[in-house]
Amino acid sequence: MRSSQRLADALRSVRITRNYTRHAEGSVLIEFGDTKVICTASVDETVPGFLKGKGQGWVTAEYGMLPRSTHSRMRREAASGKQSGRTQEIQRLIGRSLRAVVDLAKLGERQIQIDCDVIQADGGTRTASITGAYIALADAINGLLAAGKLSENPLRQHVAAISVGIVDGVPLLDLDYEEDSGCETDMNVVMTGDGHFVEVQGTAEGVPFSRAEMDALLQLAEKGIAELVALQREALATAAV
Amino acid sequence: MRSSQRLADALRSVRITRNYTRHAEGSVLIEFGDTKVICTASVDETVPGFLKGKGQGWVTAEYGMLPRSTHSRMRREAASGKQSGRTQEIQRLIGRSLRAVVDLAKLGERQIQIDCDVIQADGGTRTASITGAYIALADAINGLLAAGKLSENPLRQHVAAISVGIVDGVPLLDLDYEEDSGCETDMNVVMTGDGHFVEVQGTAEGVPFSRAEMDALLQLAEKGIAELVALQREALATAAV
Amino acid sequence: MRSSQRLADALRSVRITRNYTRHAEGSVLIEFGDTKVICTASVDETVPGFLKGKGQGWVTAEYGMLPRSTHSRMRREAASGKQSGRTQEIQRLIGRSLRAVVDLAKLGERQIQIDCDVIQADGGTRTASITGAYIALADAINGLLAAGKLSENPLRQHVAAISVGIVDGVPLLDLDYEEDSGCETDMNVVMTGDGHFVEVQGTAEGVPFSRAEMDALLQLAEKGIAELVALQREALATAAV
Amino acid sequence: MRSSQRLADALRSVRITRNYTRHAEGSVLIEFGDTKVICTASVDETVPGFLKGKGQGWVTAEYGMLPRSTHSRMRREAASGKQSGRTQEIQRLIGRSLRAVVDLAKLGERQIQIDCDVIQADGGTRTASITGAYIALADAINGLLAAGKLSENPLRQHVAAISVGIVDGVPLLDLDYEEDSGCETDMNVVMTGDGHFVEVQGTAEGVPFSRAEMDALLQLAEKGIAELVALQREALATAAV
Amino acid sequence: MRSSQRLADALRSVRITRNYTRHAEGSVLIEFGDTKVICTASVDETVPGFLKGKGQGWVTAEYGMLPRSTHSRMRREAASGKQSGRTQEIQRLIGRSLRAVVDLAKLGERQIQIDCDVIQADGGTRTASITGAYIALADAINGLLAAGKLSENPLRQHVAAISVGIVDGVPLLDLDYEEDSGCETDMNVVMTGDGHFVEVQGTAEGVPFSRAEMDALLQLAEKGIAELVALQREALATAAV
Amino acid sequence: MRSSQRLADALRSVRITRNYTRHAEGSVLIEFGDTKVICTASVDETVPGFLKGKGQGWVTAEYGMLPRSTHSRMRREAASGKQSGRTQEIQRLIGRSLRAVVDLAKLGERQIQIDCDVIQADGGTRTASITGAYIALADAINGLLAAGKLSENPLRQHVAAISVGIVDGVPLLDLDYEEDSGCETDMNVVMTGDGHFVEVQGTAEGVPFSRAEMDALLQLAEKGIAELVALQREALATAAV
Repeated sequence: MRSSQRLADALRSVRITRNYTRHAEGSVLIEFGDTKVICTASVDETVPGFLKGKGQGWVTAEYGMLPRSTHSRMRREAASGKQSGRTQEIQRLIGRSLRAVVDLAKLGERQIQIDCDVIQADGGTRTASITGAYIALADAINGLLAAGKLSENPLRQHVAAISVGIVDGVPLLDLDYEEDSGCETDMNVVMTGDGHFVEVQGTAEGVPFSRAEMDALLQLAEKGIAELVALQREALATAAV
Repeated sequence: MRSSQRLADALRSVRITRNYTRHAEGSVLIEFGDTKVICTASVDETVPGFLKGKGQGWVTAEYGMLPRSTHSRMRREAASGKQSGRTQEIQRLIGRSLRAVVDLAKLGERQIQIDCDVIQADGGTRTASITGAYIALADAINGLLAAGKLSENPLRQHVAAISVGIVDGVPLLDLDYEEDSGCETDMNVVMTGDGHFVEVQGTAEGVPFSRAEMDALLQLAEKGIAELVALQREALATAAV
Repeated sequence: MRSSQRLADALRSVRITRNYTRHAEGSVLIEFGDTKVICTASVDETVPGFLKGKGQGWVTAEYGMLPRSTHSRMRREAASGKQSGRTQEIQRLIGRSLRAVVDLAKLGERQIQIDCDVIQADGGTRTASITGAYIALADAINGLLAAGKLSENPLRQHVAAISVGIVDGVPLLDLDYEEDSGCETDMNVVMTGDGHFVEVQGTAEGVPFSRAEMDALLQLAEKGIAELVALQREALATAAV
Repeated sequence: MRSSQRLADALRSVRITRNYTRHAEGSVLIEFGDTKVICTASVDETVPGFLKGKGQGWVTAEYGMLPRSTHSRMRREAASGKQSGRTQEIQRLIGRSLRAVVDLAKLGERQIQIDCDVIQADGGTRTASITGAYIALADAINGLLAAGKLSENPLRQHVAAISVGIVDGVPLLDLDYEEDSGCETDMNVVMTGDGHFVEVQGTAEGVPFSRAEMDALLQLAEKGIAELVALQREALATAAV
Repeated sequence: MRSSQRLADALRSVRITRNYTRHAEGSVLIEFGDTKVICTASVDETVPGFLKGKGQGWVTAEYGMLPRSTHSRMRREAASGKQSGRTQEIQRLIGRSLRAVVDLAKLGERQIQIDCDVIQADGGTRTASITGAYIALADAINGLLAAGKLSENPLRQHVAAISVGIVDGVPLLDLDYEEDSGCETDMNVVMTGDGHFVEVQGTAEGVPFSRAEMDALLQLAEKGIAELVALQREALATAAV
Repeated sequence: MRSSQRLADALRSVRITRNYTRHAEGSVLIEFGDTKVICTASVDETVPGFLKGKGQGWVTAEYGMLPRSTHSRMRREAASGKQSGRTQEIQRLIGRSLRAVVDLAKLGERQIQIDCDVIQADGGTRTASITGAYIALADAINGLLAAGKLSENPLRQHVAAISVGIVDGVPLLDLDYEEDSGCETDMNVVMTGDGHFVEVQGTAEGVPFSRAEMDALLQLAEKGIAELVALQREALATAAV
């Protein structure tokens, strides 16, 4: 039994609040236990320069943490004048993950900009971001469909993400901050609603891991993502407020 | 009657939620109508270089807006690599306003760092920030007193802020975004709990204003701030969760 | 009697030298006692992007200090790679103050860029900048009128600025550096030639101030600005060299 | 048969040239076919601030590409003023991979700084960098051992890296640029000399991949890395020039 | 006869005004015709990190131009966030030129910071800067000697600078902006009071130049610098105001 | 006899390797003894904004050093976020030197971008860069001629560069790092194939130099450059691989 009273293969309590803020075309608060992220989707009726006239759209993402979302205060990236390598890695990951399930040609010459801002961090901010951003994206796209700006839904699949890791030799699902700090291996997995992989990023923090350990972690991730996708479907099934 | 069904001298509905996030020594969600700001206070047991060995503390503030807190998406300051002039003006204002009510010698050689992050914007973000930051600061200081790190309360007074302005010739209290966009004169007023001025920043957006108009605006601000201070007292009177 | 042998309500000696440098369309050296600022106005026959095709012009300002204009050398902002928050606040203030008296539609689709560079600082650099920049702006506009590029004068009013403050309990006009360093309250006031307010920025440096003190400061400012506007009129009455 | 006349499970020709430049404590030119990277290891007898006094060392890495190492010229990062997200991801990956096989306590309070600079790029620059950097690191450590600055070798294992991917449905080992540009799935794998995983980073560029495809890719990677480690051992077996 | 009514070997009118501003330890306005530069010398009783504890001092320089010192307005370097390559070249040149005549050991562990700010530009700003900076430096050093902080004068020689160039095939001394814009060869020469070279920087703007042309230019420069040094001596002979 | 067993007027061993890397239109490894620089020329069929529509081309250059090309590791400029003043000076010098021998009108509306990257440094990196860049430029231009994109060769002359200096009172040709570190005077000379000067940059590092010393240095440089031009001709005479 984990310190959080969870079984090794249990997700934390996941909550998805749609229409969390007023202005964005999609706006979601997603909570994985004590990790809370605001994900918004903003529709921009232009595309970046490199896509001008190519008859397709784009989905991109930015990520940030409030300075005191963490145990000790982090320096504000706007004040330090640049985004850290970690921030850039995460926002590139979110963007790739979402583009993997969008038919960019069907999106037309417009861009959807995702912003994931961490209000409170307790491990798993990137996986919560991807999972919540999918809902914000879906809401923005539904708005475009409802407004007649899109005739066909460019979303091909759900996409969701979860972390898995080995702590004291035991493979665990959905690590919180304390577990993540002490784990030997940490893996973030992004999968589609039909069970295919979009991203697998495994890192040996301490001891390099074996093929058998990797297999155990992937199996845990598959279970967790199936549950997350079910929660996404449920959240989207209710009418938007 | 204003579009928001308020009288000219009425505040919007103000809500103060203490202990909004887990990690900070003080953490407040303040809402002025649809304007929502997370204010946190972080205690740092060191002081900036220019105060080393001077036997006093410091209070400073940073301010940011989530990119989609606004009607159309703003560029993320961390991505553009610098804080705008507006951001810097606001965070300097918040810092000065709070320091005006803190006895820095009594604070001891430590710094309290305030972060005000706008989750949703509808006018008055800087005044909501100051009003909410005071509560976060008070909670952080109460924590230091409770822990025996401070023997005497360095807070001399409450401090709160409100905007006033002239719209279509009529002085109004607590402008929302629509009113603010169309106003002729815009004034931000910061006052203490005992009715003294800390900052007055009045700007003629369109037509320069007369002394009589200025007097009317100051009178509105005094009324609004008295109400805000009462709400602050009420919020602090309840036990922290 | 103040250390500078002035009465509480007396300006320092003010000197305005037009055509101070050769290349700019307007070029003024303004001196408030030992504070010396070069103000130039440069006409640019294009407008910033956000105004393209809107049938109106723009006036904007930048501000800087020579590194050794001050008692101890300041770091050169070009070398440190960014303008301080203070610099940005001041240049935004100068720009707003001038735009308040310009009919931007009458200016046509062109921009006038003001540069205020402090050669020597002894308090009041922002108020000297605004007061001098008005003359440089007027000279640039007169040049456009003389050249037939403008058919009507877009200047609606004079604009000038002065600082006031409370030192040892006494309200004083036009603070020099020493007075400014020790004042309890500092207020910068920008007014038009017909006595209306454009900006009021009052800050309690030490003790918050009362409404009565504020009234006394505004009255001093009104007196000082009336004198500055008279000096501006006198300077502009002489033919440009 | 691939366009490069290789079998699906064949590495490109790999060449390792030790002592490639004069000044560095370890200096290696590594070539994976037409991909050429200079890897140097520089010993610094201090540690970064966060490790001061902790009785351990550090290994860190930086990565760059000459502007015309690529088919079309890339902008020089030193001129554009920042490292791209891709560059930061790669150099963080190189650093983590090397640290995974170094006993930092045995390294003592010193830092080894790895620089990987791509002279010519044809796919696989990050995997060549890791594989070559290991040799440079080993040479630098051997120098410290020979000089008596280290009494015990802090290297626990070899580490090497290879890319694998699915092109037209076929899993391939060690993709060149053309294969990489057209692949459906791209995976970079970092492993130790005894066959454990340090990093696995798989990305679906086009179609999300199945668990079976992932297994095939991992198997290819295991084969390739075993061959690379053998080449590393051979290179290190010869006396340094 | 040149457009400025000068002979080919004639300097422009040179004016040196000492004590031009109040705060700096040395402050000079130098004018080469319409080129006007404020040169200040600031004494700093510390040395840069790389000289700590080495028993010697340092002289360094920074250079800037007011945005409208030039015919058309230049972008303000503080606003653009970096100094241009040209600015950096010039300030490095000024620093090297001054250090060439200072015995840094005799200066003691202190730094003299030179600032050269161009108020009005008409060619030759770098040579005027060097020539004027020498006077500011001498005044600062004289102040240190008078205050007993130095027992021996660290200045070994005068240093001055002039530009020479070939315009329409004719070697000219001290080019103004118009001549400089059209010249085939441009050379800046820095020499000591006793006729030795400190810097020679010759550039073929159009046609490469012959050895004979170079000799003619050097001869002109020697004449001009001898005259400048005489003017420096004269300026320093009068008591400081 | 110098420590490198060279006579005072002897070049180091110079090697020119054409087609050093695959992708660039011109790619040269040039070695002056232990100094090794990769020079590439990249053809860009557009011109910078300031030349659009002017019917002429442009040649520009960038310069960099690998962090461990030097005795002790230098900070990577891409990581520090800006190019040093030294880097900017050198790349501006390379660009000017090459443009001096190119008929930009004959080049047509295209730009050739030179990159000089120092792999190993032992003094004279800027002179090796210019000398090698000329070959890369010639190869790129020959490619354009061969492809029929140019009908006439825009190269008017060879250009090459060498350093000279005074060490212990003796004028020396082609200083290595050790000689350069200890020299009294350092001069970089750039000349055309027909013996005219393009750039002369002489600096007194220690003692200012006399006219006679300058003449001796120029004579050495003329000898060295004649030899370099002969080596350039020889390198270009062989067919490109």
